[in-house]
Amino acid sequence: MTPERIAIRVRDTESVVWVGRGALDDPGRFLVSESGRWLLVSSRNAGAAAARLRDALSPHAILDLEIDDSEEAKTLEVVRTIADRALEAGVRRDDAFVAAGGGVVTDLVGFAAAIVLRGVPWNAVPTTVAGMADAAIGGKTGVDHPLGKNLIGAFHPPRAILVDPSAAATLPDRDYRSGLVEAFKAAWIADEDLARRAESGVGRLLARDEDALFELLLGAVRVKAEVVESDPFERGPRRVLNFGHTLGHAFEAAGGYRTLRHGEAVAWGIAAALAISLDRAGLSDADAVRIRSVLGRLGPFPEPDRSPGALEPLLLRDKKATSRGLAGVLLEAIGRARVEEAIPVSDWIAAAERAAIG
Amino acid sequence: MTPERIAIRVRDTESVVWVGRGALDDPGRFLVSESGRWLLVSSRNAGAAAARLRDALSPHAILDLEIDDSEEAKTLEVVRTIADRALEAGVRRDDAFVAAGGGVVTDLVGFAAAIVLRGVPWNAVPTTVAGMADAAIGGKTGVDHPLGKNLIGAFHPPRAILVDPSAAATLPDRDYRSGLVEAFKAAWIADEDLARRAESGVGRLLARDEDALFELLLGAVRVKAEVVESDPFERGPRRVLNFGHTLGHAFEAAGGYRTLRHGEAVAWGIAAALAISLDRAGLSDADAVRIRSVLGRLGPFPEPDRSPGALEPLLLRDKKATSRGLAGVLLEAIGRARVEEAIPVSDWIAAAERAAIG
Repeated sequence: MTPERIAIRVRDTESVVWVGRGALDDPGRFLVSESGRWLLVSSRNAGAAAARLRDALSPHAILDLEIDDSEEAKTLEVVRTIADRALEAGVRRDDAFVAAGGGVVTDLVGFAAAIVLRGVPWNAVPTTVAGMADAAIGGKTGVDHPLGKNLIGAFHPPRAILVDPSAAATLPDRDYRSGLVEAFKAAWIADEDLARRAESGVGRLLARDEDALFELLLGAVRVKAEVVESDPFERGPRRVLNFGHTLGHAFEAAGGYRTLRHGEAVAWGIAAALAISLDRAGLSDADAVRIRSVLGRLGPFPEPDRSPGALEPLLLRDKKATSRGLAGVLLEAIGRARVEEAIPVSDWIAAAERAAIG
Repeated sequence: MTPERIAIRVRDTESVVWVGRGALDDPGRFLVSESGRWLLVSSRNAGAAAARLRDALSPHAILDLEIDDSEEAKTLEVVRTIADRALEAGVRRDDAFVAAGGGVVTDLVGFAAAIVLRGVPWNAVPTTVAGMADAAIGGKTGVDHPLGKNLIGAFHPPRAILVDPSAAATLPDRDYRSGLVEAFKAAWIADEDLARRAESGVGRLLARDEDALFELLLGAVRVKAEVVESDPFERGPRRVLNFGHTLGHAFEAAGGYRTLRHGEAVAWGIAAALAISLDRAGLSDADAVRIRSVLGRLGPFPEPDRSPGALEPLLLRDKKATSRGLAGVLLEAIGRARVEEAIPVSDWIAAAERAAIG
């Protein structure tokens, strides 16, 4: 089977996403390195996918580094380690990194690639569902800071992204289910038809049917590609991809990045955004019920900390806050989202209390 | 006096360079901040210029940070400090940094601005001659690494650059003279007429005549602006700006960044590049003599370490080395330079031994 090819042009870089089983059978065919030399950086959890990459690339790999894939490892220090090891290996501007793992690994390696020699090309091989649907596409890379998530980083799109649903086969159930939240999010904000098909396929998705997963991921990648290409630097329309993420990030931080997976926090963030959307964006009850029902079947998810004392300082420090207020993404209907520029923090906190799943 | 305005368009960023006495009289007129808020980062040596900026910006400054301006301070740790302080101050994407100092400060602040919130605008106020002629223009930012100079960094052009020759009035003589090397370099690679005028004005330049300095800086900025705009990512023609820098960086590193100022090392690097240019690029003896004579009057400069044992490993690790070899900039005539893709390291080392000034 030949993977589907989706090209995204951002400034002068073309990112090509290959979606399909088979992408990992012959990775050298899809990954890009001008010199033919590779710097492989993989997560300890990337397992079979990393092994297949290693087999394919090792004759010309100048680095093979394993790193930790947890949110606590998403730091400037780890980027520094990747940069040190790459420079010690003699990295040149015509070599290329290959990042294999979850969103933490692609964020770290993409950022290291952005700043080593002022920019070395890189490729992403996401091995989690959330990474395949979301994290590696669009060029946002970066690390966390004690004051918040992703506060340090760069825009540096990968040359190639390999999305092979078979890499998800060995994921723990909790990671698999929470990753599906990001894939559904893409459908809900921009593709009603995809959302309807995926909703009717939730059973097959939960049973790990690879065809159903392929179809959802392909649709999610197409949504993300279209949105990113229209607004590479997230000044306007791209912000709809943050649906569920404003409170999602706050829930995640309030739990110390331990009680909730990213996708679980986003599920609660989506549920809260539905409450605001019902009030301010004309979202119908029927659409809200459909989304809550899917989230319920992907869950159950651990309860977030909804206390205003925990959420308020986190919202005020949000990276997307400007002098005009805290912007939010609202759903007008399934398949149609818009950005509202200044939603008061008190409304966010009230929505967090009302958020319901199931 | 109204400063001269030179605009450089790089991708979607317009950098405007203001050259002239008066730029620092009313800096708020020329610096750019969308929100009107400023983050001032200045060198301890920026003295009067920093004080004038502070006076002008302080009502809307959310940060006023002094940092060290020495090459040893050009590290990722200092960038981290700048980022920490900016985030603690509540920096937003519509705020702007202002860097005041030498090339180390503009490189550090520009890089911090590139990675905080994935990119915050910045402005440069170079206070050294080398910085005015070269360092702040074109968007190359970054830090040193134990393995070499500028090995970690980003392309992030400043919105505005204020080049006010009066800021050079208080520079120590050694800094002033070595900075002139970078300004002359711009003339030698691309503007024969400017070179001739500046050569006949060396006496006035050394006497700190501000009109002569203004004329040379304006010409050097125009050369750099034109070259950078034609090749923002240094894939082709922009590399001519590295004239004298391949061995210059090696000399500087061989001296542990202590025995030679950057401009002094570049002076020796230019002298060595003249030797190669005589052999391989048809440079005339008369032109080589003219350049050596100017360098002699700007000097004397401390002797570099020319030993092959010190230089060879540094050249092999040069950031501009590719799988095809070590590229170098040669002079065909005063005002006309070209890049030669693969000059053997042995030729560089032989040229280092032959380099003569005066």
